[in-house]
Amino acid sequence: MDLSSFFPVWNKLSDAERTVLEASAVKRTFLKGSVLHSGSDECTGLILVNSGQLRAYTSSPEGKEVTLYRLLDMDICLFSASCMIRGIGFIVMLSAEKDSEVTIIPADIYKKLMQNSAVIAGFTNELMASRFSDVMWLVEQIMWKSFDKRLAAFLLEESNIEDSLTLRITHEVIGNHLGNPREVVTRMLKYFADEGLVALSRGTVTLTDPDKLRKLAED
Amino acid sequence: MDLSSFFPVWNKLSDAERTVLEASAVKRTFLKGSVLHSGSDECTGLILVNSGQLRAYTSSPEGKEVTLYRLLDMDICLFSASCMIRGIGFIVMLSAEKDSEVTIIPADIYKKLMQNSAVIAGFTNELMASRFSDVMWLVEQIMWKSFDKRLAAFLLEESNIEDSLTLRITHEVIGNHLGNPREVVTRMLKYFADEGLVALSRGTVTLTDPDKLRKLAED
Repeated sequence: MDLSSFFPVWNKLSDAERTVLEASAVKRTFLKGSVLHSGSDECTGLILVNSGQLRAYTSSPEGKEVTLYRLLDMDICLFSASCMIRGIGFIVMLSAEKDSEVTIIPADIYKKLMQNSAVIAGFTNELMASRFSDVMWLVEQIMWKSFDKRLAAFLLEESNIEDSLTLRITHEVIGNHLGNPREVVTRMLKYFADEGLVALSRGTVTLTDPDKLRKLAED
Repeated sequence: MDLSSFFPVWNKLSDAERTVLEASAVKRTFLKGSVLHSGSDECTGLILVNSGQLRAYTSSPEGKEVTLYRLLDMDICLFSASCMIRGIGFIVMLSAEKDSEVTIIPADIYKKLMQNSAVIAGFTNELMASRFSDVMWLVEQIMWKSFDKRLAAFLLEESNIEDSLTLRITHEVIGNHLGNPREVVTRMLKYFADEGLVALSRGTVTLTDPDKLRKLAED
């Protein structure tokens, strides 16, 4: 199994380390909508995304959700192996937003490598730093931006990921991403529609004026 | 300089590594209110808190602030040395909430040690994981808890840190901690006072019914 493209430090690893990683890697497929990882007790392992799209999110006791970040092709999910690292006191859930093929490195194998290699530990550090940055971005979005800007930014990001101006997405799903009730999303989308920013139909949102949306998001 | 109490992995370091750390360490004092670290360009280094109290926070373009976490005696600030770790794309500011004595390990020295030692890299990982947990806690507070619960939790935490039921703190400062305008804080504190949870006077907030506050915060 070719793992070199996932690990920028591949060339700095020893032959033995590479062999251990390759021998332990397992391929799995998850259908759209399925949950890959749902709690702190589980320790799925390091999840490498070969293709598809995963969503990392957190959930309130009442089932309210907010998206933390997305994992696309060639991304690595660290927190599905959170048992590896002491000091992680939170739960990240993971679900497939598209049919996805992933490669899993078992947590115990990776942990052992990390404990013995400064290169692998350093790489893990960078991985965590980059997810930390995503979450800090979210904190800033929540704290500083009002909902109209957050919704505009979300629609543009979705449109970018899907490479389409028409998004097949319900108001409820948007609300789950942004941590707002469906009613608030619906109200704001109607306002956007009135302003000519989007067009709404059952189950889709079409970006009719991406430039104006961008201006709103960046304002 | 005795650094062993800051580094739980001290016994696992080589003599050479310990010598480098000790030789590079510099003691500094910061008066209450002073800013230790204020941006991404700076790379102050690893800050070890000998005594006092530091506040890590983020700030909006308009100067709105929100507290990310506090650093008390024996805590280590990683993000004042964020240049050490690739992938960190956010800015954490740091100010002294009390007169504080800190020990600084220069970033370039620590980075070199980290690149060559799986033990130090692993320790750095745990440090980041624990700050990440603090920030995730904050995200959950913001997303799931309404402001009354957040304010109650904040007052109890402050009272705990200060070891006093009377807090010398302005509504504006509370607002900066929680990311809300002063007016919102004032309104909610007045509501708390009406309910008999706190007593207000110029520049102080006294917790008159901590049990009821706790119940509100945990509800």
